[in-house]
Amino acid sequence: MDGFMQSVGHYMLDHKTKGMPGGIAPFPMAEIAAKNWNILREDLPLPLAVLKKSAMDHNSAWMRDFVARSGAVIAPHGKTTMAPQLFGQQMNDGAWAITVATPQQLAVARDFGFQRIILANQLVGKQAIRYVFDELKRDPAFDFYCIVDSEANVAQLVAAAQSAAIGRPLQVFLEGGWIGGRTGVRDIETGLRVARAVKAAAPSLALRGVEGFEGLTPTDRTAAETQVRTFLDMLVHLAQACEAENLFAPGEVILTAGGSAFYDMVLARFSHANLSRPTRIITRSGCYITHDSVRYRRFFTEITDRTPDAAQGGGLLSAIEVWAYVQSRPEPGKILLTVGARDFGTDDRPVAETWFRPNTAMSHPATIPPGHLVTGHNDQHTHMTVPENSPLQIGDMLSFGVGHPCLTFDKWQILVVVDDAYNVVGVVRTFF
Amino acid sequence: MDGFMQSVGHYMLDHKTKGMPGGIAPFPMAEIAAKNWNILREDLPLPLAVLKKSAMDHNSAWMRDFVARSGAVIAPHGKTTMAPQLFGQQMNDGAWAITVATPQQLAVARDFGFQRIILANQLVGKQAIRYVFDELKRDPAFDFYCIVDSEANVAQLVAAAQSAAIGRPLQVFLEGGWIGGRTGVRDIETGLRVARAVKAAAPSLALRGVEGFEGLTPTDRTAAETQVRTFLDMLVHLAQACEAENLFAPGEVILTAGGSAFYDMVLARFSHANLSRPTRIITRSGCYITHDSVRYRRFFTEITDRTPDAAQGGGLLSAIEVWAYVQSRPEPGKILLTVGARDFGTDDRPVAETWFRPNTAMSHPATIPPGHLVTGHNDQHTHMTVPENSPLQIGDMLSFGVGHPCLTFDKWQILVVVDDAYNVVGVVRTFF
Repeated sequence: MDGFMQSVGHYMLDHKTKGMPGGIAPFPMAEIAAKNWNILREDLPLPLAVLKKSAMDHNSAWMRDFVARSGAVIAPHGKTTMAPQLFGQQMNDGAWAITVATPQQLAVARDFGFQRIILANQLVGKQAIRYVFDELKRDPAFDFYCIVDSEANVAQLVAAAQSAAIGRPLQVFLEGGWIGGRTGVRDIETGLRVARAVKAAAPSLALRGVEGFEGLTPTDRTAAETQVRTFLDMLVHLAQACEAENLFAPGEVILTAGGSAFYDMVLARFSHANLSRPTRIITRSGCYITHDSVRYRRFFTEITDRTPDAAQGGGLLSAIEVWAYVQSRPEPGKILLTVGARDFGTDDRPVAETWFRPNTAMSHPATIPPGHLVTGHNDQHTHMTVPENSPLQIGDMLSFGVGHPCLTFDKWQILVVVDDAYNVVGVVRTFF
Repeated sequence: MDGFMQSVGHYMLDHKTKGMPGGIAPFPMAEIAAKNWNILREDLPLPLAVLKKSAMDHNSAWMRDFVARSGAVIAPHGKTTMAPQLFGQQMNDGAWAITVATPQQLAVARDFGFQRIILANQLVGKQAIRYVFDELKRDPAFDFYCIVDSEANVAQLVAAAQSAAIGRPLQVFLEGGWIGGRTGVRDIETGLRVARAVKAAAPSLALRGVEGFEGLTPTDRTAAETQVRTFLDMLVHLAQACEAENLFAPGEVILTAGGSAFYDMVLARFSHANLSRPTRIITRSGCYITHDSVRYRRFFTEITDRTPDAAQGGGLLSAIEVWAYVQSRPEPGKILLTVGARDFGTDDRPVAETWFRPNTAMSHPATIPPGHLVTGHNDQHTHMTVPENSPLQIGDMLSFGVGHPCLTFDKWQILVVVDDAYNVVGVVRTFF
């Protein structure tokens, strides 16, 4: 991370940035460690989003090793964090590319010098298409991939490619989907029609592989695994059908699928695709770098259960916390905290993990006793039911584990990086 | 808005800012109108958040007139928009103060020169308390109010006030709440204990009035109105009890309550509080300036139903839209759009309102035909069920009315301001 830190180190922070102390003189991000701030000493206001450096480093190395053992590569989804510093850490740990979801996310990754980027989405709209071709023309080393699932979109891209005349093809993946799911062709025949349209558009377009996103599944585990298995089979059949018709552009064929919940199944299935061409397998998990305390913690339990090898190296650790103060205890069994839907994702409810009383003999945060349950949130408040004998008082600090990192990162322009004693050793800037 | 526009006009925009075209050279916000951009001409990428100038101006004037007719004032909640430019418009339209929810929001309002600010929340935590006293000491014209609901918090504020020795009292409101609700004392006797503690702390603290937030109520309208009525009675009784014990500091007594859903009831009840002292009534709606298409549209129907005078001047109009492209139609009855939980609030589901096909004979957006229903969202996608004969094609543009403005504003660092022909005439910057 340190190398990429320099490229954002000149960004200025001031007290309009959520997490910075009121009244502080503006200063460049690179100087934050020199402030010698400590969270438990209350050097920063709450709410505050905190990244634990040791856990992030652990997760990055764990995923590198896990993917490498399977012979695949990772193109981590940058949309989770939208933090070029973390993209840098992920590339340093061997990522093959950075994945993004939108043209703005692409622009951020380009500005920070990332050369191989997968837009795991359809490329639509005048400005988005124009920007991609401008950027491909400007930089011959820019290695870009996007996704198609319709002849209509292929026709739009062909028209733009012919007009832009950049001298090399726009590289696309054919996307498979399932009925009732998100984007992607629903059946092999439709997929072949789209793939044939891509091939017919050579040399404007080049079909580089097959893509899918397996993450949006039923909540029942058995039903989800069955659906993912069926879907991965469909993606492999789509690739086999494209190969049989010789629709892929020359070179290796890429098979890539996406989420942070089933990458073990993706690796296992794609490594038995039995294509005759050299095949590159790419997973795209974005959440592993920070993990979480609810959604992906549960999914990771399922991963190690299905794929015991994943437990090697200690698995993934939650590296992200949001801290808040107890602001009110208006009933013996209820407290309100200075944090809300503006500060963490609420699609999966955050969980209280530790508490700390500053300026006392406490030296470390203590585990929250049983019975402290988040019951709801407003924009700027969290409601919690507590036992009547709860030790919590007004002014105590609580840490929350988050339910889903993507929708917590986007609530912050900066997240502070801490060591295990909660000293602030760095800061990560997001670009949402 | 124009006056305050100058104070943010030097902020630079580039293509890392969501909503700006890829590859554009950085430029100061003040120059945006000179770009001659038009949304329907696809001069800007989607998704894009759009504020309609004529509707915002209408809403701002409507609320000024409505509140003025009741003899009250408004201190609009800035947390909705966190846009100092809009705070400026609200002050120009006669607001008495700006309300904020957090110390960071306070710092933003201070940096842009707002002198009278209500922190509609408990002031807790070392940095937040320090900043408020520093700022009160630095600027004798800073007129600040916050809220107390416990003797413990009063004791913390008294200790800080004595240490800061700023030479004038910290002004507080006593907050009332209800059992099962958010912050605020649950009964008169507890309220009196807190108020006595404030009075005992003179001249460090000064009790300026009574405050409550009536917005979090049952969804059933009759039950909600009954609860609000009971709660407003409780706040008035709290004020009467404080007056009977002479606990208010000298000067006028302030009665203030808060949300965007029941301000008519607040005005009606507080104007019959029958205190012997001069009384100032303050409402704090934040959402009226942009209104919305779901939550506050429904609440406003109820307001005009209860209080027919609110229909004068045309009522409130939705001034905020989020635009997106159709990116996929993988089934005849389903489309996916380039917009998601990163782009608008999803606690109330957004609604598709209009569609437009660029580069055709269409000159204006058309109303979405019946049967186009948002069925779900992911971080960067929206799922919509459409009739099989829906006219929508890949690359078409759709506008969404949002369900709740607060949780849409915070998804954007800028929202573009358009005239009725969707020419970009300005830009509003947020500070979340």
